[in-house]
Amino acid sequence: MKTHIAINGACGRMGQRLVALAKDDPELEVVAAIDSATNALQGKDAGEVAGIGAIGVPIRYDIPLGLRVDSLIDFSAPVGTMAVLPVCVDRQIPIVVATTGHTDAQKAEIEAAAHMTAVLFAPNMSLVVNLLFKLVKLTAEALNGKGFDPEIVERHHRFKKDSPSGTAMRFAEIIKEVQGGSFVHGREGIIGERKPEEIGVHAVRGGDNVGEHTIIFTTIGETLELVHKGHNRDSYARGALLAAKYMANRPAGRYTMNDVLGL
Amino acid sequence: MKTHIAINGACGRMGQRLVALAKDDPELEVVAAIDSATNALQGKDAGEVAGIGAIGVPIRYDIPLGLRVDSLIDFSAPVGTMAVLPVCVDRQIPIVVATTGHTDAQKAEIEAAAHMTAVLFAPNMSLVVNLLFKLVKLTAEALNGKGFDPEIVERHHRFKKDSPSGTAMRFAEIIKEVQGGSFVHGREGIIGERKPEEIGVHAVRGGDNVGEHTIIFTTIGETLELVHKGHNRDSYARGALLAAKYMANRPAGRYTMNDVLGL
Amino acid sequence: MKTHIAINGACGRMGQRLVALAKDDPELEVVAAIDSATNALQGKDAGEVAGIGAIGVPIRYDIPLGLRVDSLIDFSAPVGTMAVLPVCVDRQIPIVVATTGHTDAQKAEIEAAAHMTAVLFAPNMSLVVNLLFKLVKLTAEALNGKGFDPEIVERHHRFKKDSPSGTAMRFAEIIKEVQGGSFVHGREGIIGERKPEEIGVHAVRGGDNVGEHTIIFTTIGETLELVHKGHNRDSYARGALLAAKYMANRPAGRYTMNDVLGL
Amino acid sequence: MKTHIAINGACGRMGQRLVALAKDDPELEVVAAIDSATNALQGKDAGEVAGIGAIGVPIRYDIPLGLRVDSLIDFSAPVGTMAVLPVCVDRQIPIVVATTGHTDAQKAEIEAAAHMTAVLFAPNMSLVVNLLFKLVKLTAEALNGKGFDPEIVERHHRFKKDSPSGTAMRFAEIIKEVQGGSFVHGREGIIGERKPEEIGVHAVRGGDNVGEHTIIFTTIGETLELVHKGHNRDSYARGALLAAKYMANRPAGRYTMNDVLGL
Repeated sequence: MKTHIAINGACGRMGQRLVALAKDDPELEVVAAIDSATNALQGKDAGEVAGIGAIGVPIRYDIPLGLRVDSLIDFSAPVGTMAVLPVCVDRQIPIVVATTGHTDAQKAEIEAAAHMTAVLFAPNMSLVVNLLFKLVKLTAEALNGKGFDPEIVERHHRFKKDSPSGTAMRFAEIIKEVQGGSFVHGREGIIGERKPEEIGVHAVRGGDNVGEHTIIFTTIGETLELVHKGHNRDSYARGALLAAKYMANRPAGRYTMNDVLGL
Repeated sequence: MKTHIAINGACGRMGQRLVALAKDDPELEVVAAIDSATNALQGKDAGEVAGIGAIGVPIRYDIPLGLRVDSLIDFSAPVGTMAVLPVCVDRQIPIVVATTGHTDAQKAEIEAAAHMTAVLFAPNMSLVVNLLFKLVKLTAEALNGKGFDPEIVERHHRFKKDSPSGTAMRFAEIIKEVQGGSFVHGREGIIGERKPEEIGVHAVRGGDNVGEHTIIFTTIGETLELVHKGHNRDSYARGALLAAKYMANRPAGRYTMNDVLGL
Repeated sequence: MKTHIAINGACGRMGQRLVALAKDDPELEVVAAIDSATNALQGKDAGEVAGIGAIGVPIRYDIPLGLRVDSLIDFSAPVGTMAVLPVCVDRQIPIVVATTGHTDAQKAEIEAAAHMTAVLFAPNMSLVVNLLFKLVKLTAEALNGKGFDPEIVERHHRFKKDSPSGTAMRFAEIIKEVQGGSFVHGREGIIGERKPEEIGVHAVRGGDNVGEHTIIFTTIGETLELVHKGHNRDSYARGALLAAKYMANRPAGRYTMNDVLGL
Repeated sequence: MKTHIAINGACGRMGQRLVALAKDDPELEVVAAIDSATNALQGKDAGEVAGIGAIGVPIRYDIPLGLRVDSLIDFSAPVGTMAVLPVCVDRQIPIVVATTGHTDAQKAEIEAAAHMTAVLFAPNMSLVVNLLFKLVKLTAEALNGKGFDPEIVERHHRFKKDSPSGTAMRFAEIIKEVQGGSFVHGREGIIGERKPEEIGVHAVRGGDNVGEHTIIFTTIGETLELVHKGHNRDSYARGALLAAKYMANRPAGRYTMNDVLGL
């Protein structure tokens, strides 16, 4: 039996990819496509908006009463999340929050909602990134005290304004939580030998690189590298769709991508 | 207090590196250096044999009676392992068997010895390779059924006679044990689309590459790569020395590198 | 002064990207957007077809008489090339043929047209791939007879039906033309040491990889790697647009991407 | 006919490798092994010093009169170079100076000697590094003004005291000489979009990495990477031996590794 999903933010760039990728997945059926009431595309077919031809689901600003929805993916904006959240609570629809940028107050509301319906809230929907958080932790623990030097190199497009990426710093913090250490961003001059406690984090910028992270643990004689390469934004859409399948009909509670990955 | 170690095969290439690296490690002291009775270097100082200057430990073919030995590293030859094994059992010395090439009968004897003394027996002493066996298994489990294609690329020196490497095939088997699949070695011609069950294993050969393994899990939108790069044989020597520290004064039983890594 | 370009195949996937990327380039102006007379999008604005909003240029099946066109990019189909070619000859419009799949007879016609107008005909519009053809040749010459082993590893998406890629084989042939040698696709079993004349070509398949080529020259002590990574099809569109600028107002003759790159 | 070579600095780490690698090369014969008169190994067999067994050539502090020497490799210390240089001039022996650290005055003397005998003087003997200097220049020229962002990532062992490596900065300068630009070492914080003129140079440190340089040119849609990986110091020894063959019996003049590579 197919999982019936609703998509909040269906007219956005990510929403369109969700609609398109769901259509190719025999285990999924998009039954509701939601976007803000003021969106000019209201009433249009969600498939046509996504450029894949009509799927018989119009863009709406609410979820039709009586419609079976097994889970909802929110890939909209903070205000969009807050609009759909009470509906999910009322109707006991599990919600996957893939939107980012919420205020602390909004985050608290989302957490509170998890007492009443199933909530998966993740800042990054990529399966590989979430798996790597786990692998890096495990590696930092196993190699701790055994003479390995951790260094992180990330690459992103020329338009990125912050360095290093938030994801790179999350990897660096995971290592620091296990091994201690201090972050180093850039080395220049006669600075002497590398200190064992250093965690180097290097931000390469250029072109239209979607995002690449290499976590290096190197020692005398050998090196381990754990690498994530994003090709395009479909990795986030696919992660959200897998999460939606996993969340279908789950009881109330707070879930993470680790649950989806069975970690 | 320093760990007192004995080295079996002390005149060999790996034995010499063990002697040299142990000298630089404040937690270790080499108290016995053993090699075959017919070795021309019998009686010479083990440090001089290793090219690091005298350490006051002569090459011998036995372990002096009454000497405190906390653990023994065997990096010799199968016949060397079998000669030292009963001594370890008799004197309750934990043994790290880093030698390869034993017959099935010899392996059975080593396993049997583990009922009487602590035995760590690993075909590969590299910390990173052993850690990667674990990470690849975990990854294969987490990503199973989620549309990822596994491929392995390994590189070794031009003198290697077998392809792919045994380590590469071990990685491939770990994936297969979890996900099923069939191995593909080389693709040529109009062979059609990749089948989901394929596990590609590619052997690059050239130069003096010590050994490099890249395990790839790739899908629509993103890629994970787990990479091991061996620089030189010190990775095996260092793994053996760490194992020797871990094994010091352990009770009888069968141990693996996973124990050393705390996995 | 802007280069006035016409695009043949303006409704196709690549044509749309040409229209979109040209709009962002202050040195370019799209003055004609051509596609087959039977295309349902005839008469629509080319910018709207490309999803970037109207640009005031309708899709047509011919080039308006009297219109100044400095060069034309053909990214259509072989039949499309043959339809536009005589027009370019008549009006002395330099043409960039980025279409592939022509018959030998069609190719001969294109070559013949170069006697009458400027023709750039390249099987691959990527700047980096064309530059790499040159760098690989130079490397093969410089390292010939100096003990280096060449190996090529390419990666493409799971849907690709032929292995290795045509581009990978072109790299392999460039090496062979300089150094001699024989191609090896896949190594399995106890096959003995690598022979110096081998040129290994390995095809990794998986996910949606747009295309990646690594040309390795490795020896005792060091390795050189020349790598191309395609992120998406914009690399071809950008190469074609640069070629169009280069070709503007050139005299009749046969041109290649090497001319565009100044090689 | 074999090339008869003399080695200056034969007792040093590099000198020993030269002796060892030359023995394996059927085109070479070591006929003189020179080191300082105060070296304790004077008179010993150079092969035994190098750990490869006697070769019948004792360590001396001069070149025997009347001995045919086709070329000399100096891999010693600045004072060693200055001692052997006048002998090479007197006897018209081509000299390969692989030693580094000379004062400006010493460098001037070496340059002056090139008027009287053949002199090859290179700060880095690696064939691949010297070839890459050329390939990077060619690439910077071909891609200049075409929207590519250059970035360099280098890796070296944890003991290296200066960052980035001199070789990395040489690559950066080659790019700057062609394209202009300013160097960036490390990015941290909300620093805004990458400026087109930036040349990022990132120094990764850890383990015992012999030296690795990746020169990246990336743009919208594609990336070029030129990579050098040093495995061990044999790359320098092999480069010096190839240079010695090339220099045999050359007329007076100033030579570079480009000549050896035929660039």
